[in-house]
Amino acid sequence: MATVNRQITLASRPVGFPKVSDFHLVFSPLPSPVAGEVLVRSVYLSLDPYMRGRMSEAESYAQPVAIGEVMPGGAVAFVLESAHPEFRSGDAVEGMLGWQEYAVVQGHELRKIEPSSAPISTALGVLGMPGLTAYFGLLDICDPQPGETVVVSGAAGAVGSLAGQIAKIKGCRVVGVAGSDAKIAWLLDELGFDAALNYKTAEDFDGKLEKLCPAGVDVYFDNVGGAITDAVVRLINVKARISVCGQISQYNLEEPEVGPRWLGQLIVKQAKVQGFLVSGYAERLPEGLKQLAIWLKQGKLKYREDVAQGIEAAPQAFIGMLQGKNQGKQLVQLSEF
Amino acid sequence: MATVNRQITLASRPVGFPKVSDFHLVFSPLPSPVAGEVLVRSVYLSLDPYMRGRMSEAESYAQPVAIGEVMPGGAVAFVLESAHPEFRSGDAVEGMLGWQEYAVVQGHELRKIEPSSAPISTALGVLGMPGLTAYFGLLDICDPQPGETVVVSGAAGAVGSLAGQIAKIKGCRVVGVAGSDAKIAWLLDELGFDAALNYKTAEDFDGKLEKLCPAGVDVYFDNVGGAITDAVVRLINVKARISVCGQISQYNLEEPEVGPRWLGQLIVKQAKVQGFLVSGYAERLPEGLKQLAIWLKQGKLKYREDVAQGIEAAPQAFIGMLQGKNQGKQLVQLSEF
Repeated sequence: MATVNRQITLASRPVGFPKVSDFHLVFSPLPSPVAGEVLVRSVYLSLDPYMRGRMSEAESYAQPVAIGEVMPGGAVAFVLESAHPEFRSGDAVEGMLGWQEYAVVQGHELRKIEPSSAPISTALGVLGMPGLTAYFGLLDICDPQPGETVVVSGAAGAVGSLAGQIAKIKGCRVVGVAGSDAKIAWLLDELGFDAALNYKTAEDFDGKLEKLCPAGVDVYFDNVGGAITDAVVRLINVKARISVCGQISQYNLEEPEVGPRWLGQLIVKQAKVQGFLVSGYAERLPEGLKQLAIWLKQGKLKYREDVAQGIEAAPQAFIGMLQGKNQGKQLVQLSEF
Repeated sequence: MATVNRQITLASRPVGFPKVSDFHLVFSPLPSPVAGEVLVRSVYLSLDPYMRGRMSEAESYAQPVAIGEVMPGGAVAFVLESAHPEFRSGDAVEGMLGWQEYAVVQGHELRKIEPSSAPISTALGVLGMPGLTAYFGLLDICDPQPGETVVVSGAAGAVGSLAGQIAKIKGCRVVGVAGSDAKIAWLLDELGFDAALNYKTAEDFDGKLEKLCPAGVDVYFDNVGGAITDAVVRLINVKARISVCGQISQYNLEEPEVGPRWLGQLIVKQAKVQGFLVSGYAERLPEGLKQLAIWLKQGKLKYREDVAQGIEAAPQAFIGMLQGKNQGKQLVQLSEF
């Protein structure tokens, strides 16, 4: 066993887009678990847009990461050494293990996973936080009905691609917005979206989106915000439901952006906009995981992964994800499975 | 009986704030009711902010008023002549009778009112559309709980003053935002609001509002929009509920306004924003009217009225209301009761 833990810490708070120099790679001694704790070795680290918010000083739903602190993040891992009665060496687990190769955490903070039922990386995707986020954010907030038009922004992302597929399972007409032709092709050819639009290259984005939504928009699952959301809001139908999952277009701005005010449209359309965190559904996670696992087994949920290699690759992979360069769920492989 | 009906029609679509020259006073022959119809003479005409939207060409939840058409509006009236089995001469009624002294309407479009139980003008206020708007917009969308902080914008208006009082009945701490010191005094001294703030004169409005909401904001009932709403949104608590009833700050702008984007705040606070129209509660109106009448009889709901005299005064009174000059529900008296 190694005696050194390689970690990525926050070196400085980013101004606008993060740079690799905002991170440090540090070497730490391997910690030992005390009673109730478990030492794990991570296999896959998950990189997610929410992490950008944690790098900023502004108060959010979670404390900001301190300068010099290990970056937070979910990971799947194997237990190396357990001082907790419910875990033993070799168990596969998922938890908030951080951007590091090894971690010592409280046993109660870990979720056991079953490597024989699905690839362990799915615990960070369709059978993990992104899947649950799509499941509750779409179904609980928007209750999509057969035949309704559902628009998803960030549609090729880990969450958006699942939200769109769940809407298809519910019998909706699904329109995805994404940022590359390769992503558009994936949505249409592999995931069965009814229509998809590249916001980076479309001339007259608003007009094109309107053409793709001839019956208006009943449900909008928003990962992006900004001008894409403004365009969708213009098309909403009476009693539309908007689930606000992310606002990635706004996370890296040096100055906050202004935009058209559209609360009047919510009145006219008697429409709802609701923000959510998957942590708000903590008590219902088993329900979500069970249903997602069934759909995955039935072949109704597809996913792909973009896997960077080695902890030292995490900062650049994270920045690439914020720029939309990843093709599928962004992971970093930290050890062999 | 007069043989001439005086009416106010839309002469031209306003640019920005309406002017009196955007209206015409016209004289028409008195119509006669045919089978199923009723001829009524109006006593009070209600002037409401939503009418500004109907003067614009833009599509909304209702058709725009055509140039030359009588302005729409609710009124209380007495039946002069009935060709409908359920109405007879002398009945007091409420309905969408328009800005005119007489109207012929379908009987099924009228609601009978009981002049002995409350002043007939209340059918345009606490026991009418404004009361029902406050009732459903606050209770159905926001479900305020005892001890929660509720902010109301347009708090001295016909709807806002009732929304705030209903929140008080529910045991909330209520903070009103209004546009004159006389309105602020009324909210504090007569209606029992816990705090109130004059947005037109407050220096550092945001800071003052924050001081008046030391425990943050759980519920926001918005009649105004714009910078007031931006300030409230910065203060919302986790699981806050925002009911969007009106956006009067935006109705008379020549150019649409931009403002800060705050969907990210909805995510962080897992908060909901919902627009509504009272017409969306058509099936539940009896429930609302019953409860409002009980509270009114118990002295728990107070109101005041600002009454202009004569149909010819309606345009100026309407413009004054849009500017916040009215003290209480704006009515126009069209005949003696």
